[in-house]
This record gives sequence, C-alpha cells and structure tokens, in this order.
Amino acid sequence: MGKFLTSREENYSQWYNELVVKADLAENSAVRGCMVIKPYGFAIWEKMKDALDQMFKDTGHENAYFPLFIPKSFFSKEAAHVEGFAKECAVVTHYRLRNKADGTGIEVDPDAKLEEELIVRPTSETIIWNTYKNWIQSYRDLPILVNQWANVVRWEMRTRLFLRTAEFLWQEGHTAHATKQEAIDETVQMINVYAEFAEKFMAMPVIMGHKTENERFAGALDTYCIEALMQDGKALQSGTSHFLGQNFAKAFDVKFSNKEGKLDYVWASSWGVSTRLMGALVMAHSDDNGLVLPPKLAPYQVVIVPIYKGEDQYRTVLEAGNKIKDQLKEYGISVKFDMRDTHKPGWKFAEYELKGVPVRLALGARDLENGTIEVARRDTLEKNTYPQEGIAKVVKDLLNEIQENIYQKAFKYRAEHTFSADTLEEFKDILDNKGGFVYAHWDGTAETELKIKEDTKATIRCIPVDNKLEEGKCIYTGKPSAQRVLFAKAY
Amino acid sequence: MGKFLTSREENYSQWYNELVVKADLAENSAVRGCMVIKPYGFAIWEKMKDALDQMFKDTGHENAYFPLFIPKSFFSKEAAHVEGFAKECAVVTHYRLRNKADGTGIEVDPDAKLEEELIVRPTSETIIWNTYKNWIQSYRDLPILVNQWANVVRWEMRTRLFLRTAEFLWQEGHTAHATKQEAIDETVQMINVYAEFAEKFMAMPVIMGHKTENERFAGALDTYCIEALMQDGKALQSGTSHFLGQNFAKAFDVKFSNKEGKLDYVWASSWGVSTRLMGALVMAHSDDNGLVLPPKLAPYQVVIVPIYKGEDQYRTVLEAGNKIKDQLKEYGISVKFDMRDTHKPGWKFAEYELKGVPVRLALGARDLENGTIEVARRDTLEKNTYPQEGIAKVVKDLLNEIQENIYQKAFKYRAEHTFSADTLEEFKDILDNKGGFVYAHWDGTAETELKIKEDTKATIRCIPVDNKLEEGKCIYTGKPSAQRVLFAKAY
Repeated sequence: MGKFLTSREENYSQWYNELVVKADLAENSAVRGCMVIKPYGFAIWEKMKDALDQMFKDTGHENAYFPLFIPKSFFSKEAAHVEGFAKECAVVTHYRLRNKADGTGIEVDPDAKLEEELIVRPTSETIIWNTYKNWIQSYRDLPILVNQWANVVRWEMRTRLFLRTAEFLWQEGHTAHATKQEAIDETVQMINVYAEFAEKFMAMPVIMGHKTENERFAGALDTYCIEALMQDGKALQSGTSHFLGQNFAKAFDVKFSNKEGKLDYVWASSWGVSTRLMGALVMAHSDDNGLVLPPKLAPYQVVIVPIYKGEDQYRTVLEAGNKIKDQLKEYGISVKFDMRDTHKPGWKFAEYELKGVPVRLALGARDLENGTIEVARRDTLEKNTYPQEGIAKVVKDLLNEIQENIYQKAFKYRAEHTFSADTLEEFKDILDNKGGFVYAHWDGTAETELKIKEDTKATIRCIPVDNKLEEGKCIYTGKPSAQRVLFAKAY
Repeated sequence: MGKFLTSREENYSQWYNELVVKADLAENSAVRGCMVIKPYGFAIWEKMKDALDQMFKDTGHENAYFPLFIPKSFFSKEAAHVEGFAKECAVVTHYRLRNKADGTGIEVDPDAKLEEELIVRPTSETIIWNTYKNWIQSYRDLPILVNQWANVVRWEMRTRLFLRTAEFLWQEGHTAHATKQEAIDETVQMINVYAEFAEKFMAMPVIMGHKTENERFAGALDTYCIEALMQDGKALQSGTSHFLGQNFAKAFDVKFSNKEGKLDYVWASSWGVSTRLMGALVMAHSDDNGLVLPPKLAPYQVVIVPIYKGEDQYRTVLEAGNKIKDQLKEYGISVKFDMRDTHKPGWKFAEYELKGVPVRLALGARDLENGTIEVARRDTLEKNTYPQEGIAKVVKDLLNEIQENIYQKAFKYRAEHTFSADTLEEFKDILDNKGGFVYAHWDGTAETELKIKEDTKATIRCIPVDNKLEEGKCIYTGKPSAQRVLFAKAY
C-alpha cells in the first residue's frame, strides 16, 4: 500500500484521484467512463442509501422499479426534455450476437436489429409517466409517492470517479399529485430531506436555493438544489428536486378526475441524489493523510490495532481486544478488530488513517499491564490514553464529537470562503485568488449569466431560498437587481 | 378492483398472470419483455433482499458494484461461457442521438458508433474476473468474497412476469480463493444459504442437488441448485451456486503467489438468486382468492379494517384501532391501519385477501362495546373473535403459526407429488396425470437426458445431494444406473 498522497495544495485534482483509488473506494473499469465501486466505497454508499431510504419512507414514499430501457420515441414527447437528455446516451440497436463465420469470435447479428432503438435510461421521467398513465384515473389514486434506486447512463466524454461517470447509481423520486400546491410542497420537502441528510449524515453544510432558468432540469418549471463547497473553493451540486408542473402529464396524457368529477392533468415532482455524493464526501473533509469520514457514514467507526510480541502477548491482547470490541458493540458502535498477522501495526495505522476510520484504538503490552488503551481520532490526529474500563462510553462521546467537529470545520471553511462582490473586478479577484462562494448582483437574464460564465468560469449555483432582498446593480451589465445570487466555479 | 381470479384448476397459468397484476406486484412495461415492479411487489422483494443480504454479510461477504456494460470481446475469452451467454442480449452500438434533419424527432447519430460494441451484462463473471486480475497478486489478497445487487438483461423471446423477463433484478456473488477445496466449500455454503432462506423466509421446501453436465452454468465445473415444486406440479429452479474451478482465472489470466511463492491460478465460485423468486413465492402458496404471503416477507403482516357508522363511531374506532396498532408495533409486528373513507370495509376485506396480508383484524361497533376484535388468518381463512386485551401476543403467535403452516402445507403438497418410476410408461403416466417430482434411474449420458426431455418434456432437475445409491436400470435405455435422479417438468 502506497500511503503517500499528492498534497491538496500541490494538486487538488490529483490528490482526489489518488485518494479515491488508494482508499479503495473506486477505480476505473475496462469500460470507458464506467467505474468499479469497491467494497469499502460501496459500504459507505450503502450507509448513505440506508439513511436516505429511511428518510424517504418516513415521508411516506415507497420504492418501485422501472425498466432500464426507454424507447427512443419517448424522449421526443416532452420538448425541453429531449433537448436536455436524449443526446449523449447509450443506444441499444440489436438484441443478438452470433459466431463469426471464420470462427474468430462473435459479432452483432444484423438480422437482430430492433425496430425502435432503446435508450439506456439517463433519467426515468418518460418511462415512469408513461406507466403512471395506467395507474391514475381518479383523485383517489393520488398522490403517488414513488422512489427508485437504480443505475443510469449518460455518455460523458470526460469522466472522473464518482463526480462524473458514464454509469452511476442514484435514486430518483417521481411523484404525482392532484394539485399544484401539493406538488410544490413535495418538491420543497424533498430538497429539505437532502439538506438534512447532507448536514446530519455527511457533516456537510449546504446552501439551498433555486436554479436559474438556464440551469434548470430539462422539463422542470422550478429546480431546487443544495450546493456544498469543496476544499479547493469549488462548489458541488449535491442534490436536486424539481417541480415539473403538468409538463410530463401533458406529454404522456395523464389525466385524473378530481373530486368534482372534472378531468385535469396531474402535477409532478422528481428528485434525486447520486453516487456523486461520494465525491462530495471525499472532497469536503479529507486531508493529505487520506479520507476523513463522518462517523455516521463510516463502514466501521472504530478499528482496534493490537501490538504484541510472541505467543503469550498474542493471547492476552486477543482476549482484551475482544472484550473491548464487545463493549463497543453494546453501545451500538461498529468496530473492526484487526488481528491479521500478515501486516505490522505501523502498516495498519497508515492504512486506517488513509481509509478515514474515525477512531483508532491501539492496544499494546504496556496497556495490558496498566489497563489502558490509546485512542486516536482521525479528524484531528490527536492521541490520548484512557483506562480500558468505561472505554465504550468515551468512544461513543468521541464519535459524536467527531461528527460535530467535521461539520464545524467544513462550516468554518465555507464561512471563510464566502464573499460579496460589487464589481466584476472584485468578483474575478475573489475567484482567482481566494476561491469560494461569491454573492453578487445579476440582472436576471440568461444572456448575462452565460457571459459571466464565459468570462470568469463561474456559474450561478443558486438563488438561495433564504435570500434577503437588497437593491443593487448587476456586476456585469450594471442593470438593476433586486437581490444577490450565489456564484462559484463548480464541479 | 376486480377481485375475481381465474381459478388454479381452470387455468393455472392464467391464474398466475392475473394474480401478479391484480395484487399489484408487477406489470408489463412499454418495453418488450421488461417489467415494472410495483410498490407492493417491490416491498416483498426488499424483504427478500434484506434477509439475503444479512445472510451474505453473516458469512463474511461484502457488496460492490461493477459496470453494467461488458466489452463484446470479454465473452469470447471463456469458451463455454460464450456459447451459453453471449447470444441473446442487448447490444449497445452507439453513444449519441441527434435531431432529425426534417425536425420530426431524433435518430441515432451514425458518427457516434462505438469501436467495440458493449453488451448489457447478462451475468458478470467476465467483467469481474477482468477486475480481479488487478486485485490479486498474493495469497494475502485472498479470499475475495464479493456480492453485487444488480439488474441484468437476457433477451428472452417469450417472457412472463418475474419468471422470465428480459431485464431482471438479482444478486450475483463472485468469490476468489487460493485453493480448490475452499472454492468448493464456498459453493456448498452458499447453496445452503439459499436453501435456508427458501425454507425459513419463503416457507418453501426445496431439494438441493447437482445439475447434470448438460444443465450446468456455462463455464462451471459443478452447479448446485435448489428446486421447489409449484402447485401445478412443475418444478422451479430457485437458486444456483457454481464451482467455476480455474476457468475464469485462466481466461482472464488471474494468478497469485501462494505461501511458498509459487504462482497458481485462482479458484472461483459464483452464485445467484433473482426476482424469479417472486414468481416462486406466488406460485408456491397462493390460492384462488389471491396471494398467500409468509409473514416474514409480507410488506405488512397485519391490517386493521375499521367498521363504523357516523362521526361518533369513527372517533371511537380510530382511538381503539390506534391503541391496538401501537401494541402490535411494540411486539415488532408491521401493521397497516386502513382508515380510508374512500373504500367500504367489504372492498378492503377483498383487497387485503387478494394481497395476501397474513392477518386481518376487523374492528366494529359491537367489538367496541364488548372489548373484542375479529381476527382472520389468510392462510386458512378462519375467523375468530378475541378480547382486545392481550391481542398483540395472540397475533404474534398466530403469525408464527401461519409461517409454519404455510411451510407444512407446501411440504405436504410436495410429499404427495413426489413419486418413483421404474419404467418409461410409469414415468409418463405420473407426469401426465399427477405431475410433480419423479425419482427415476438414468444412464448418466447427456444423450439419454435429451431424449427423455424430447419425449416427455421432463428434465433432470438435479442429482440430489442426499441421494442414496441404489442400483437400477435407466428408464429410457435400460442401461445400468447407480442412483435415481430427480425429474420434473419445469419453469
């Protein structure tokens, strides 16, 4: 195991790429743009999934599963959607292979051409609304509150592990409602669920807001997002929730009879987060020694590393370690006791530091004599010695403290990298020399938004929901503006 | 809701098709051969998944995720595998669509043709062993005990919901070992896990055995399976575990240095179960009134249906129902209290019977006066009245009894439909007039196996692991045989 990483300062991008691979989170596969999520990385994703799934169920949602493939013609049914989605995607054209005549392998059987090509889903609004058409007749059938955990494919030319891959894992909620207000309430509820998840589980503060029309989901009337700040001063969109109005209901002719017996189109929302959150988690907290995982998402929260010589010490340390392990488990703490004799303690220390295990306990010969144990926390790298007696309570409290500390550290970083700019010059200076979020006035036009992007590479991350109105002048055109919006360079 | 189903006797196949749709388990989608798994069906699959996932983790396995796509050339690397798998599958040939010149929609962009076609995974041995090549250098890297939950696609021409669909959900375990014995032990361990799951959770007795060479997984040296008997006397293969020898290691050049420093190829197993189990669950237990679910897999184990008139009764019944609901929850019972005023009690009774909810509690005005409640069990359709006091304990015991009773009923059915045949005539007579499993002698050749299949439509389901040796003569050729094997017509 190569412990040493490129430092963040030296090359942030390389640091990230190395860390994801060296910490056994993911790696590139033989298929261009598709990743392999390794067991350690997948265990973190499972924790995320379980927490989110519980939050979805607590808010009344059920899971279902819809087809991987979508008929090509479905995309053309919603005008904005086809522009946004149907271009860069995997197209299935045939359903059979055959042996080559010369016996050198297999080839596509030209006789097995599909009448209509199938698209590997980049998102499922179209196939789902085509299905909902059969599920909905009356207001009694509403609301439909359904979520799907699935893989999706968007053919990306430039890919990066977790952040942008051709195939990724995600969940997509698709809800159907009798009224506009109910659909909007659902949209808002779910972006709040995402924000709560990001802050409580990922220990990652986020800013919630509306996307500009320009950055909206293809087919949405309003897109809410949460935006987090990474340690290189770039923003990362970490979840979106869309109010779709009646667009998809109209495209797929989904009507219901309301309580008065009148026919109307159904109102919709959709919302999703993906394995991109894994990238956000890595970049929000980790350091030059490796991952720093919030205890709530760590595959194991504590590792016990024994230090011993000879058979006698081996037996004593094994017994003491198991006792401590059992105590921790009783406190609901997940723990790994690494008794492998194939690796030395120093190697293990580096390994678990790299993998971001929140708390490391080291149990040596002197500890056994004194009834003590060494406790090292990953976030601050501090070490302290405690009595073995009552260690579970100490560790439990420490895990809570680490969860909170990681959040506070990210919050502080964000506060120190959030600025206001009143001129384009100031704006550029901040982006070039400090990085981070910049609140600035904008005249509200897509034209100006694009020009600022071309000129500075910064985009409007969102119009924050808690924005206070404040009159000012657009930094680019000088035209009047009623509020500042949130800019940043972004992933 | 149309309650009435075609009866099993009238048309078993139609009964199944109607039941799956009417009980809201699944339906056909707009994409040929692909199903939509509806929330109620998916909730059952989630219960299965959770139970299996825990069993996999308890036996030391971790989850990971590998690409959806497999390069075409990978399939040619293992000779037997390509014959078995690479033919009927979805082939991705292009990665972009474009607007049609005449503005009438979108079409495949001929400039975006892939250099090498990608196959949507029908199973993942090839891509996984290509990945393991980089994970394995030394015996220290072994064993690898990895499982993947995923969707797979096999282009089936004749599909049936859950039983045979183009896309289905499954798990596939892929393990790598330093020794042959360890890989065999793993293969056996996992077929035992499947058998335990089938019997304890699905309440479905199974027979465990080896597949004949003919029916083996493409690329395996030995395939273990579990076989269950459906109510129409046909068998359903419900899980397989394969000892792959060094075949895939050789195909993908995966070697490791053993403790003595010598290079050797890695040994492998793979094992899987799929959403096909949903079909097995339906067909093993359900009756002409609808689903019969084992309590351990029911999305909710108990439903409370209130019967009331007027506002006063509404309030009393709501209060009493909530109290009972809370008591049941304290006993770890999942419960739905259906207070909807959009549907009448009779409708609800039929609905929950159709959906196989194990226990139904009905709470009416007279019950409120008497402090009683009506308890109906789905498996026997028996009804009894109990005091509300202590009802949770009664229901808890009843759920255990139902789980056991469903198993016993299926066990009894199987016992009554398991036969021995000593002549081909007897064999055919059983298959034609009784159905079920038939133990018969076979000469051990693939040729005879195929002839029996052509002649009778019955296949060798397995050579049971607990088979006693018994000399006899092949029912087809009269040649000597050392043991009977298990035949049946099968799904």
